[in-house]
Amino acid sequence: SRSINLAVIPGDGIGQEVVAQGLKVLNAVLPQDVKLETKEYDFGARRYHATGETLTEADLAALKKHDAILLGAIGDPSVPSGVLERGFLLKLRFAFDHHVNLRPSRLLPGVATPLAGQPEIDFVVVREGTEGPYTGNGGTIRKGTPHEVATEVSVNTAFGVERVVRDAFARAQARPRKKLTLVHKNNVLAYAGHLWTNVFTKVAEEFPEVTTDYIHVDAATIYLVTDPGRFDVIVTDNLFGDIITDLAAAVSGGIGVAASGNINPSREFPSMFEPVHGSAPDIAGQAKADPTATVLSVALLLRHLGYDNEANRVEEAVSADLGGRGDTSRTTDEIGDALAVRVAG
Amino acid sequence: SRSINLAVIPGDGIGQEVVAQGLKVLNAVLPQDVKLETKEYDFGARRYHATGETLTEADLAALKKHDAILLGAIGDPSVPSGVLERGFLLKLRFAFDHHVNLRPSRLLPGVATPLAGQPEIDFVVVREGTEGPYTGNGGTIRKGTPHEVATEVSVNTAFGVERVVRDAFARAQARPRKKLTLVHKNNVLAYAGHLWTNVFTKVAEEFPEVTTDYIHVDAATIYLVTDPGRFDVIVTDNLFGDIITDLAAAVSGGIGVAASGNINPSREFPSMFEPVHGSAPDIAGQAKADPTATVLSVALLLRHLGYDNEANRVEEAVSADLGGRGDTSRTTDEIGDALAVRVAG
Ligand SMILES: CC(C)[C@H](C(=O)O)[C@@H](O)C(=O)O
Ligand SMILES: CC(C)[C@H](C(=O)O)[C@@H](O)C(=O)O
Repeated sequence: SRSINLAVIPGDGIGQEVVAQGLKVLNAVLPQDVKLETKEYDFGARRYHATGETLTEADLAALKKHDAILLGAIGDPSVPSGVLERGFLLKLRFAFDHHVNLRPSRLLPGVATPLAGQPEIDFVVVREGTEGPYTGNGGTIRKGTPHEVATEVSVNTAFGVERVVRDAFARAQARPRKKLTLVHKNNVLAYAGHLWTNVFTKVAEEFPEVTTDYIHVDAATIYLVTDPGRFDVIVTDNLFGDIITDLAAAVSGGIGVAASGNINPSREFPSMFEPVHGSAPDIAGQAKADPTATVLSVALLLRHLGYDNEANRVEEAVSADLGGRGDTSRTTDEIGDALAVRVAG
Repeated sequence: SRSINLAVIPGDGIGQEVVAQGLKVLNAVLPQDVKLETKEYDFGARRYHATGETLTEADLAALKKHDAILLGAIGDPSVPSGVLERGFLLKLRFAFDHHVNLRPSRLLPGVATPLAGQPEIDFVVVREGTEGPYTGNGGTIRKGTPHEVATEVSVNTAFGVERVVRDAFARAQARPRKKLTLVHKNNVLAYAGHLWTNVFTKVAEEFPEVTTDYIHVDAATIYLVTDPGRFDVIVTDNLFGDIITDLAAAVSGGIGVAASGNINPSREFPSMFEPVHGSAPDIAGQAKADPTATVLSVALLLRHLGYDNEANRVEEAVSADLGGRGDTSRTTDEIGDALAVRVAG
């Protein structure tokens, strides 16, 4: 009989509330014969304040035993900027080699966009997750003096670029339009740019059915607001991916509905699924948070674990729910209930 | 008697056409007693193909003698990506220490935006122009092999950050809203982020009237499409500035109307003014290019040289022209003529 052994990290702010709805929908959609085991972990601001710890070796060993991880949100204004980001979120991505950071953007019917004319948007960004300027390489000399010099080193390897580019090609191949766009800044960042462009061109030979093109990251932000329909799959570096996926989320309905997966395709380590939005401390505990992004992250989790039908059902439930929303405001729990009913039905 | 000794670089593609209109308007707006001398320089694809040169020491010595530089566009598909960008555009910025890259965004009446609801947009980005990931620092080992490693080093100095941050504070101070936003990614790029944040906080003490805030670059792209009115002046690093100013141009009427200045505030070297759009080879020579961005760059040039009234008149002419455009399509020349008439009248 099948089973899913899930690590659950509610985290800070609205994390607890949205994760509860994600689990509700997960329970409702899974077939009877699938045994779902969950174990909750306390990470984030509370734990940091109590113990000074963000993510220990023992934590990593415990998390490693799970099939996947569902995370709500990590971050609180009471913790200095960067501590939880680098000490927990990035540490986990690097420790579990989450090199495919998957961020789909679909403008669903009934969802408001800041763009005029309600354009069709349906693309996915494959963001590299373990290299680029995110490696923490760099340093400072003469800190705090008028002669301070601070550096940040973007590290890019053929190994790291090739595996994520190949993953993106495979995803493009599996989609109806079969189109892959490389986003970089190879006219300025020439060393990294050459590596990315070269690997992209080489891997393209293995996927003759996939149409490819290249766009500089600055121009990509223009297309994301003037012609987002031009994109099918995008592959890009860690930092460019961070930037364009927030913009992509904004134009395709906002971070309230943006899901993401931090994926290790080899399954050597568990992959982690989380809404793109943060902990939103200003609305925490008020039952106002929209759990949709978390529920869509559950769909990515299901697909990653091979439950394609269930993933589709969750996404269809979300589409139907968003389409029928109108102007009535519902609590976090009510939205979760509605989605759970839809996936079960 | 006053004089302006201007270097003119038409460059590639539509550069020639738009620069001609910029000069037309400049001639029309300048008072009788100001003597305008112009000297045209041949840079870009033609020169590169003929001589292999992009920008020599002798070129720099010649350009240095001018009061300012007006540039159309540089770039052509016949030249490998990066050659003219690094060999001409960036080389000039670095050689002439253009550390203030000024990019205003105003959504003018009558101008189409991809955003719904025609929001009010009036902000200016002060992008650092001589540091960050643009320094060309970095390298490659094992090029072309499966073990290639390519690095890019972002270099940030207290000297370089402080001068651009102070410039941005002074600009914010001179505007009605007096608000300055620092855009960076200090939770991840902690070395550079600490330097920027620290310098920003220190310089802020000299400008007690200026309200300040900080936004991560990824979140900034969200605000640029959901609430661009929140911005007054933005100061940011070279690469983040590159990315967000293209997005800013897109939301505030497109790169057809986006102007920029590469400024050396000390006037030790001439500053350079150019439209944000590129050479657009697909429409070159067809009298289809909109010279508005170049004409607005002329306004920035005039203001830089102390001709504030004339700068205002050029900007008012552009506003009036855009507001009265309707749907009739005019040639590059006709738009230039209309603007020249307006500034003279
Ligand atoms: C919180 C931060 C470290 C993170 C990132 O920069 O990757 C976030 O912005 C994201 O996109 O997941
Ligand atoms: C052409 C390129 C080198 C340049 C840059 O990246 O700065 C351009 O994008 C710009 O914004 O002026």
